[in-house]
Amino acid sequence: MSSYSAKAVVLVSGGLDSATVLALARQQEFELFALSIDYGQRHRFELEASERVCRSLGVKEHRVFKLDLRQFGGSALTDNIDVPKDRDEAELSDGIPVTYVPARNTIFLSLALGWAEVLGAFDLFIGVNAVDYSGYPDCRPEFIREFAEVARLGTKAGIERIGRFVIHTPLISLSKAEIIRRGMALGVDYSLTTSCYDPDKFGHPCGHCDSCQLRRRGFLEAGLVDPLPYRE
Amino acid sequence: MSSYSAKAVVLVSGGLDSATVLALARQQEFELFALSIDYGQRHRFELEASERVCRSLGVKEHRVFKLDLRQFGGSALTDNIDVPKDRDEAELSDGIPVTYVPARNTIFLSLALGWAEVLGAFDLFIGVNAVDYSGYPDCRPEFIREFAEVARLGTKAGIERIGRFVIHTPLISLSKAEIIRRGMALGVDYSLTTSCYDPDKFGHPCGHCDSCQLRRRGFLEAGLVDPLPYRE
Repeated sequence: MSSYSAKAVVLVSGGLDSATVLALARQQEFELFALSIDYGQRHRFELEASERVCRSLGVKEHRVFKLDLRQFGGSALTDNIDVPKDRDEAELSDGIPVTYVPARNTIFLSLALGWAEVLGAFDLFIGVNAVDYSGYPDCRPEFIREFAEVARLGTKAGIERIGRFVIHTPLISLSKAEIIRRGMALGVDYSLTTSCYDPDKFGHPCGHCDSCQLRRRGFLEAGLVDPLPYRE
Repeated sequence: MSSYSAKAVVLVSGGLDSATVLALARQQEFELFALSIDYGQRHRFELEASERVCRSLGVKEHRVFKLDLRQFGGSALTDNIDVPKDRDEAELSDGIPVTYVPARNTIFLSLALGWAEVLGAFDLFIGVNAVDYSGYPDCRPEFIREFAEVARLGTKAGIERIGRFVIHTPLISLSKAEIIRRGMALGVDYSLTTSCYDPDKFGHPCGHCDSCQLRRRGFLEAGLVDPLPYRE
C-alpha cells in the first residue's frame, strides 16, 4: 500500500456483495472506512458478519450507524411480513419484491455522504447490482448517477470544489457468479458473510429465500463451493 | 377541507420557517404528516417546539425520527464547536457557516421520502431558503431539483409511475420578512417556534447567533413584533 491513500467510505452489509466491494476498494489502495447500518433488519446476523468481514479485509475504521427504519415500516426485511421462499426464475424477475425497503439506498448513500464529508473522502462504494436485483429501483445505474449529482450539489465539499464525489458501483453489471469469482481471486473469505433474509437463531441460512437462491446459483455457476452451512 | 385530501410529508424542525411551510401545506388542503428528526442537535428545544407547532396546525400524524448525526460529527450544531455570535452582514454572507451539518438535507429528504413511500404520499415539503441561508449548499433550487430526480429513480412508487414526487419548497426565494408576513396571514403562532442555535437551559433564545439575528431582522423588516423572550 502506498504511503498516502485516498479515503473511501464503503457501505458494508455483511453480505457477499459488499464483502467483494470492500476487497475491490482495497485492491485500489483506498484507505477503507466501512459503514454498516443497523436499520432494525430482521436478519441481525448481518451486523456480526459485517464486523468479521471488515476485520478480515483490514479496514481503517468500521462504524455501525443506528437508524431504525422500523419506525416507518413497509418492508418484509423490517416488518412482520413473510419472506418469500422457493420462488422460480419467473417469480424472481417479476416486479419489485416485498423485501424492498422504501428509499433504502437513497438513505444509506446519504449517510455515507455525510460521513464522507466529515472524513474528507470523495469516494463512496456500494454493492448494488442491476442484474440479479433488477427488481430494486435503487440498484440501477441511472439512480446512482443522479445521486452523484445530489452529492455534488448538496455538500459543502462539492460546492467548494474541494473534490468530486464518485459513487463506485463495481458490481453493478456483474452476474452473481462473476462477483464470486472476482472476490475469490482477491481472497475474500465468503464463510464470514451472510446473505439469508430469514436465518435461524444460529444464523444458519434458510437456503430458499430470494437471496439464498441467488447466492447458491451463483456459486453453482462459478463452479465453486459455497462455504455456508445451509439448513438443508 | 375536502373529503379526500392527498397526503404530504412535511419536514418540521420547530423553527419559524418550517412552521410557515406547515401552514402553507395546510392551506393547500394536504393531509399533513409531519416528520421531525432528532439528530442529536444541541438545541433540543427544537423538538418540543415542533410538537407544539404540529398540534397547533392540526397535523394528522407527527413522527420524531431518531438519527444521531453526532455519530459522524463535523458541525457546530451537533459537536462542541462554538456557535458564532454577532456576525455582521459581510460575515453572515461569507461562505458556508460552521453550523452546516454535512449532507443534512440530503439525509432528511431521504428519510421523508422513505416515509412518503410507505404512506403513499408524493408531496414532500421542506422549508429551505436560498436567500438568507445562501451559505448552505443543500438549500439551493438546483439541489432540490436533483433530489426530486433521485426520488423518482430510487423508489418503487417512482418506477411504477404510481405518482410523481414533488419536493415543495415554498420559501426558497422569500426573504425572512416575507416568510413571517405569510405565516402571520395564515395564523401561525410564532411564539410556539424556536430558532436559536444556542438557547439557555430554559429555551430562551440568545438573540445573537446567525439564526436569531436573521429572525429578529425579519420581524423588524416586516414591521411585526417577535413574540420570543430574547435573553436581552
